[in-house]
Amino acid sequence: MELQYALELTGTFVFAISGALAIREREHDLFGAGFTGFITAIGGGTLRDILLDSHPLVWIGDIWFLYAIIAGILAAFVFPKFLSRLRKTFFLFDTLGIGFFTVLGVEKALSLGVRPEIAAIMGMFSAVMGGVIRDTLTNEIPVLFRKEIYASACLAGAIFYLVMNYFEVPRDYNLLISMSLVISIRLISVKYRLSLPRLE
Amino acid sequence: MELQYALELTGTFVFAISGALAIREREHDLFGAGFTGFITAIGGGTLRDILLDSHPLVWIGDIWFLYAIIAGILAAFVFPKFLSRLRKTFFLFDTLGIGFFTVLGVEKALSLGVRPEIAAIMGMFSAVMGGVIRDTLTNEIPVLFRKEIYASACLAGAIFYLVMNYFEVPRDYNLLISMSLVISIRLISVKYRLSLPRLE
Amino acid sequence: MELQYALELTGTFVFAISGALAIREREHDLFGAGFTGFITAIGGGTLRDILLDSHPLVWIGDIWFLYAIIAGILAAFVFPKFLSRLRKTFFLFDTLGIGFFTVLGVEKALSLGVRPEIAAIMGMFSAVMGGVIRDTLTNEIPVLFRKEIYASACLAGAIFYLVMNYFEVPRDYNLLISMSLVISIRLISVKYRLSLPRLE
Repeated sequence: MELQYALELTGTFVFAISGALAIREREHDLFGAGFTGFITAIGGGTLRDILLDSHPLVWIGDIWFLYAIIAGILAAFVFPKFLSRLRKTFFLFDTLGIGFFTVLGVEKALSLGVRPEIAAIMGMFSAVMGGVIRDTLTNEIPVLFRKEIYASACLAGAIFYLVMNYFEVPRDYNLLISMSLVISIRLISVKYRLSLPRLE
Repeated sequence: MELQYALELTGTFVFAISGALAIREREHDLFGAGFTGFITAIGGGTLRDILLDSHPLVWIGDIWFLYAIIAGILAAFVFPKFLSRLRKTFFLFDTLGIGFFTVLGVEKALSLGVRPEIAAIMGMFSAVMGGVIRDTLTNEIPVLFRKEIYASACLAGAIFYLVMNYFEVPRDYNLLISMSLVISIRLISVKYRLSLPRLE
Repeated sequence: MELQYALELTGTFVFAISGALAIREREHDLFGAGFTGFITAIGGGTLRDILLDSHPLVWIGDIWFLYAIIAGILAAFVFPKFLSRLRKTFFLFDTLGIGFFTVLGVEKALSLGVRPEIAAIMGMFSAVMGGVIRDTLTNEIPVLFRKEIYASACLAGAIFYLVMNYFEVPRDYNLLISMSLVISIRLISVKYRLSLPRLE
C-alpha cells in the first residue's frame, strides 16, 4: 500500500505540473496557472467521490495531496522552460497518470459497493475529468472531444480490469496489465495518429 | 408506478439519443458523441440529487438507467441518418421529456422535504441542466440562453404543479396538466417564434 | 450574529444583481439574466458546501436567501439603466462582497473541522466560484483568468485571516482586518492596473 500511496502523490504532482503548464501560451497570470494546476489535479477524483458520496474528499482528508499539488505548481513556476522542453516526458507522465488513476478509480468505486458498469465509468472519470473541467473553465474544447484516443483508452482499460477481476486474476497483476493496456492504447494511437470513427 | 418507471427509462433513452446526435456536425468521434449522450441524459437529475444530498444517484442505484443510456447511444450510432431525419420527432420527444422530468423533479424534491420554492427550481434543473452541462462542455452557448422559451416553460410548469398541489388537485391529474402546460408553452413559443423580452 | 446574517443576505442580493446585469449586453432574455443572477449568487457557497459535504445547502435550508436573490434579479429587471449607471457603485459592492464571503467561507470551513490550508481554498472558492460558473456557462473567460488581481486577493485575505486566527486575534477584529485586506488589494490593483506576473 505504501507504494500505491507514493504513486498517488506522484500522479497528483505530475497532473498539477501539466495543468499549470497547459495554459502557458495564453493570457493567464501566475495565479490562473496555479488555479488550473489545482483543478487538473483534483478534478477527476473529486467528481468521482461527489457522485459516489464518498467524504471527506481525498485532498480534504489528507493534506499531503495539497502539498503535492503546490509543489507541482511551484515546479511549473520555477522551471517552466526546463519543464516545457520535457514536453515528451510530460506526455509520458500524463499517460502514466491516466493509466494509474483509471485503475485506482475503478477500485475505489468497487470498494464503495457499486456495480462494475458504474465502476468502469468512475475509473474513466477519475482519469480524465480533471482535464475536462480545466479545459471547460479556460474555454477550450475538452481533450475528450479532440481527435486522438484518450478517454476511450481509459474506459477500455477500466472494462479490461473489471473482466480480469471477474475471473479472479490477482489484483497486482491485474492492476499492472490494465494500466499497461491504457498506456499502450494511448501511445499507439498518438504514434500512428489513430482515432475512432466519427458519427456520419 | 410501473408506468412512471417505464416513462423515466424512456425519457432517459430519448435524452441520450438527442445528446449523442447534438454534436454530429462537429469534429467529435464516436466516443465523444457517446459521452455527450451520457451527460445529457444524467446531468439534470444528477445535479438535482447532489444539491439535495440524495444518494445513491438514480443511475448509480439502478443499473437499468445506464442500459437505457447505452441503448440510446447505440441507436444514435447505428441509425444516425434515420434518426436525424426524425428531427421533428425528436424535437417532440425532447419536449415531452422536459415536461415529464420537470414534474418528476418537483415531486422528488418535495418528497425530500424541501420548500415548494426550492422544489420549483429543482424541477427546472432536472429538465434542463443535462443540456446545459452538455453545451458548456462542447463550448456552445447553452440552450437556456438562446432565444426560444425553454427553461422558463419548465419553471412555469413546475410552479403550476405546486399551486395545483397546494389546492390538493389529485396527483395524476396534476401531473398530466402540468406536463401539458410545459409542452404547450414550448410548442407554441417555437411555432410562433415567441421569446421573452430582453433586458434593455 | 444578526449583523452577520443581514450582511450575508445583502451580499447575496448584490451578487444576484451583478450576475443579472453581467449579461445585459448579450443576446439573453429576461429568464437567462435571472438564471445568471441566481447562479452567481449561490455558486460559490454551493460548491464549498458540496466539497465539504455540508447539507442542507444554505439557500435550500433558509428560504430567505432565495428571496434575496429574487429581489436582486427583480431590481436588475426594473431599474437596469439606473443600476448600470451605478457601475462604479457595483464594482464597490462586488468588492465588498468578495471580501465578506471570503472570510465567511474560511470560518464555515474551519467550523466543519478541516485544516486551515483547506479552509483558505474554501474561502476563496466561496467568493469567486459563483462568478466563475456564471462565466463558464455564458462562454466567457472566467474573471479569475483575466488580468486584474481578483481571486488572488481573496486567497491572500483568507491566509491572512488564518494567520491572525492562529495568533488568537479576536474574531471581530480579525474579520474586519482580513476583509479590508481583500478589498484594499482589489481596489489598489484595479486603480493602478496591477497584475501578477505571467508564466513565461
